[in-house]
Amino acid sequence: MSTEEKHLSDIKALNEGSHGKPVGYNDFAGLLVTQKGPILEILLNRPEAANSLTGEMEVGIHEIFREAGDDDSVKVVVVRGAGKTFSAGHDLKEVADWFVESDGQAQILRLQGVPALRRPWYFNKPVVAGVQGYVGPMALIYLSMFDFIIAAEGTRFSWEQARRGGVLPLSTLMFRLPMGVYKKLTMMGGWFDADKAERLDLVQKVVPEGQLEDEVWRWAKELAKIPTAQHVAMKRKIHRQYELMGLLSMLEPVHPGGHGTEEDFEFYRALKEEGMAAALKMRDDDFDIDLAQIT
Amino acid sequence: MSTEEKHLSDIKALNEGSHGKPVGYNDFAGLLVTQKGPILEILLNRPEAANSLTGEMEVGIHEIFREAGDDDSVKVVVVRGAGKTFSAGHDLKEVADWFVESDGQAQILRLQGVPALRRPWYFNKPVVAGVQGYVGPMALIYLSMFDFIIAAEGTRFSWEQARRGGVLPLSTLMFRLPMGVYKKLTMMGGWFDADKAERLDLVQKVVPEGQLEDEVWRWAKELAKIPTAQHVAMKRKIHRQYELMGLLSMLEPVHPGGHGTEEDFEFYRALKEEGMAAALKMRDDDFDIDLAQIT
Amino acid sequence: MSTEEKHLSDIKALNEGSHGKPVGYNDFAGLLVTQKGPILEILLNRPEAANSLTGEMEVGIHEIFREAGDDDSVKVVVVRGAGKTFSAGHDLKEVADWFVESDGQAQILRLQGVPALRRPWYFNKPVVAGVQGYVGPMALIYLSMFDFIIAAEGTRFSWEQARRGGVLPLSTLMFRLPMGVYKKLTMMGGWFDADKAERLDLVQKVVPEGQLEDEVWRWAKELAKIPTAQHVAMKRKIHRQYELMGLLSMLEPVHPGGHGTEEDFEFYRALKEEGMAAALKMRDDDFDIDLAQIT
Repeated sequence: MSTEEKHLSDIKALNEGSHGKPVGYNDFAGLLVTQKGPILEILLNRPEAANSLTGEMEVGIHEIFREAGDDDSVKVVVVRGAGKTFSAGHDLKEVADWFVESDGQAQILRLQGVPALRRPWYFNKPVVAGVQGYVGPMALIYLSMFDFIIAAEGTRFSWEQARRGGVLPLSTLMFRLPMGVYKKLTMMGGWFDADKAERLDLVQKVVPEGQLEDEVWRWAKELAKIPTAQHVAMKRKIHRQYELMGLLSMLEPVHPGGHGTEEDFEFYRALKEEGMAAALKMRDDDFDIDLAQIT
Repeated sequence: MSTEEKHLSDIKALNEGSHGKPVGYNDFAGLLVTQKGPILEILLNRPEAANSLTGEMEVGIHEIFREAGDDDSVKVVVVRGAGKTFSAGHDLKEVADWFVESDGQAQILRLQGVPALRRPWYFNKPVVAGVQGYVGPMALIYLSMFDFIIAAEGTRFSWEQARRGGVLPLSTLMFRLPMGVYKKLTMMGGWFDADKAERLDLVQKVVPEGQLEDEVWRWAKELAKIPTAQHVAMKRKIHRQYELMGLLSMLEPVHPGGHGTEEDFEFYRALKEEGMAAALKMRDDDFDIDLAQIT
Repeated sequence: MSTEEKHLSDIKALNEGSHGKPVGYNDFAGLLVTQKGPILEILLNRPEAANSLTGEMEVGIHEIFREAGDDDSVKVVVVRGAGKTFSAGHDLKEVADWFVESDGQAQILRLQGVPALRRPWYFNKPVVAGVQGYVGPMALIYLSMFDFIIAAEGTRFSWEQARRGGVLPLSTLMFRLPMGVYKKLTMMGGWFDADKAERLDLVQKVVPEGQLEDEVWRWAKELAKIPTAQHVAMKRKIHRQYELMGLLSMLEPVHPGGHGTEEDFEFYRALKEEGMAAALKMRDDDFDIDLAQIT
C-alpha cells in the first residue's frame, strides 16, 4: 500500500468504521439527543453562547454520528440549534485559549480524534438540518456535509471571520458553492442570506421561523419512509465521486506551519484579554460592512 | 498496462471505437430514425407506453450513436419522443421480468453490450433533445449526456422511483445538478419542473409545447453550420476533464451484490402480479406528494 | 519522479516560481501599470483596438503577475480595460499572421514562455477585474482565473468565434459555468450578458458603467485590509483542489495536430486578405444571431 493509499485508508477507517467503543447519545455537554421512532435529533444546546461549538461538542458530534451509523433503529438524523441562533461556529473563547497557548498552532481537535473532514460527511443515512438566525464558519462547514437544509427566513450564513484569517479545515463547502461565492465568502469575509442560499441550492427550502420545526420534521419523516439501503447506496456513490476528485487528498492542504495568521493571533489575544466586543470591534471596525453581503 | 488503465481503455473502446459491425438505423423496435440533410433524428416511438425504454431500445440507442459517430453525413443528432411524453424512463414491466427472474440481480443490459455509462456521452457531435410531458429516471440520465435540451412548458423531470430504491447506473447526472438538488432527487424521490430545470441550466430553453419541434430543429440547424472539428475538439476536452475527475472509475460503484433494495423487489413483484396501478399505489400512497417537488 | 509528476512540477514551477529575471511593470506595449498603495492596477491600454490582446500583452501579463507575486508591496491586483470595451480577446490580426504563416499550427505564445494555463490562476493574492462593453474569448478565459469580477450593465461575454472553430487553451472556464452554458458558449458560438453572468455567480456585481471604476476600487481597498496570508492560504487550497481534479493534466488536451479547424484557417486568411469586416461577415452571416444568446 502506498503512503497515499495508507493515508486515505486511515481517514476512511476513522470515518466509516464502527471501531469505537459505544457511547451514550447524551454523554456530551452542549448537545441534547432525543429519538422519536426512527429519527434521531441532535440539538445544539448552548443557547446562552449562540450554540457555538466547543471541542467537547465537536467530539460529541463525531461520536454520535459514529454511533448512529451503526444503530439500526436510526433511519434519519435531524440537527437543530436551541434558541435564536443555529450556531455561531467555533466557540471563539475556547479557540482563543488554545490558540494563544499554542502560539497559533492549535490543532487540538485533531489530537482528540476528530478528523479534519468531519464525520457527518461519511454518515450514510440522511441528515436534515433546520437553521435559524446565524450560521458561523464552522457551522457552515458542517452544513455543507448535511443532505437537506431548511432555513428560517433571515438566516445569515457568514464567514466574516476571514477578515482576520480564519482556520478552514478540510471541507466539502467548496463543492456546494460557485467559485465566485466561495471566494467572496472566504477571501473577503462575506456572508449571504437565506434567500441567496436557496438560489444557490445550498438550502432546499426557506420558511418563516415559526414553521421551521414542523418543516424539518416533515422532511425527516418523509425520508424515513425511503429504504435505508437506497440512502446508503446513493451517499456512497456521492462519496466515491468526491474521493475520485481528490477530496481526501486535501487533508493536509496548504498551510505550512499551522493555519493561523498573525492577525488571527492578535484577534484571539484581544478576545482573551479584552473580551469579545473588543475583539469583534478590532475585526470589523475598519471594514465597509455593506460590501460583505454576497447577493 | 495496470488493471485500472485496462479498465478505462476497455470502456473507451466500447464507447469511442468503430469496432462494431454496421447496423441499419431502423433495425430496432421502438425507435424511428430519419435523416434530413446533416441532421439525424432518433424518435422514441412507443407512445402507447409513454416511450418507456426497453432493452432493445437501449441497445438500439447504443448502436445508432456508434454508427452515427462514424457516419460523416451526420453532423448533429436530434432526440425526440412521440406523443405526449418524452420518456417514462425504463420500461418497468420489462425490468420487473428481469428483476424477479434474477432475484433482484438484473444487469441484463450490460450483458448485451450496453455500457453502464451510456454511449451518447462519448458521441463527439452535438445532440439536441426536445422533451415534453414527463422525463423518468433512465431518460433523465440520458438527458444529462446530451448537449442541448429544449423543454416544453410543464415538463416534469422525476426520480420518484427512489421511494422504493431505484437503480442508478454510472451517469453524468451528478455533474449537471447542484448537490442539494441531486440529493433531493435521488434520496427523497424528488422531481422538478421545466422552469427549475432552466434555472439549473440543465435545460437551455423552455417553450410552449406547440413550438417545441420548431425550436429543436432551429437549434440543430444552427449547430450543423459549425465545423464538426470544433464540436469534436470541445467534447473531447470535456470528456477528458471528467475522466480526470474520475468519471470512468465510477463504473462499478458501490452496490455490492447488485443494485436493488428489498423494497425494489417487492415493487417489481407487485407490478408483475397485480399490475402497474397497484405497484404505483404501493410506491406512492404513503408519501406526502407535495413535498417531492424540488423548487 | 514519473513523467506525469515531472510535467506537473514543470507547470507549477513556471507559474509559481520567482525564477524569472526582474521586469519593469511598464516594459510592455499595450499595458499601463500603476500602483496606488498596496493596489497594483493593470490597464489594458489599446482602446483603438478594443484592447485586444497581442502576444506582447500576454507575455506582459505573465511577467507582471509573476513580478507582483514576489512584490510584497502589492496586496491586490486590479485589471481594467481603457475605453468602451474591456477586451475583444485575442488580437485576431496578429493571430491571422501567425496562423496563416504556420499553416494553422500556431502556438507561438507557448514558445514565448506563456503557459497554456495562464499565470493569473497561480497568482496567490486577490485579483479584481472591472469589465465593460465586450469580453471576447481569450479575455473570458482570463476572467475565469480572476477572483472578483464587477461588470458594467450591458457587458457582453462572447464566444461567437466558435462559429469558425476557435482555439481554446487550457483554462479554468469550464469550472466557472454549468455544463449547459459552457457547451452553448463553446459549441454553438454563444454569448451571455452581465445579468446572466451575475446569476451564474461568475460576476459578483453589476453596476451602471459610470460607477464601475469606483466599485472596483471599493472592492480592492476592502480586500487590501485582509491579511495576505489568508488570501494565499485560501487560493492555494483552491488550486490544490483543482489540481487533484486533474486541471494540470489538461495541458495538452485533445487537439491532435494543432488546434485549428479548416474553417479557422479560411477565416484568418480572409482577415489578412480582405480585412476584419469581410472576415466577420463570413463568420456570422449564415447564422441565426437571435439564437446565440445564453439566457
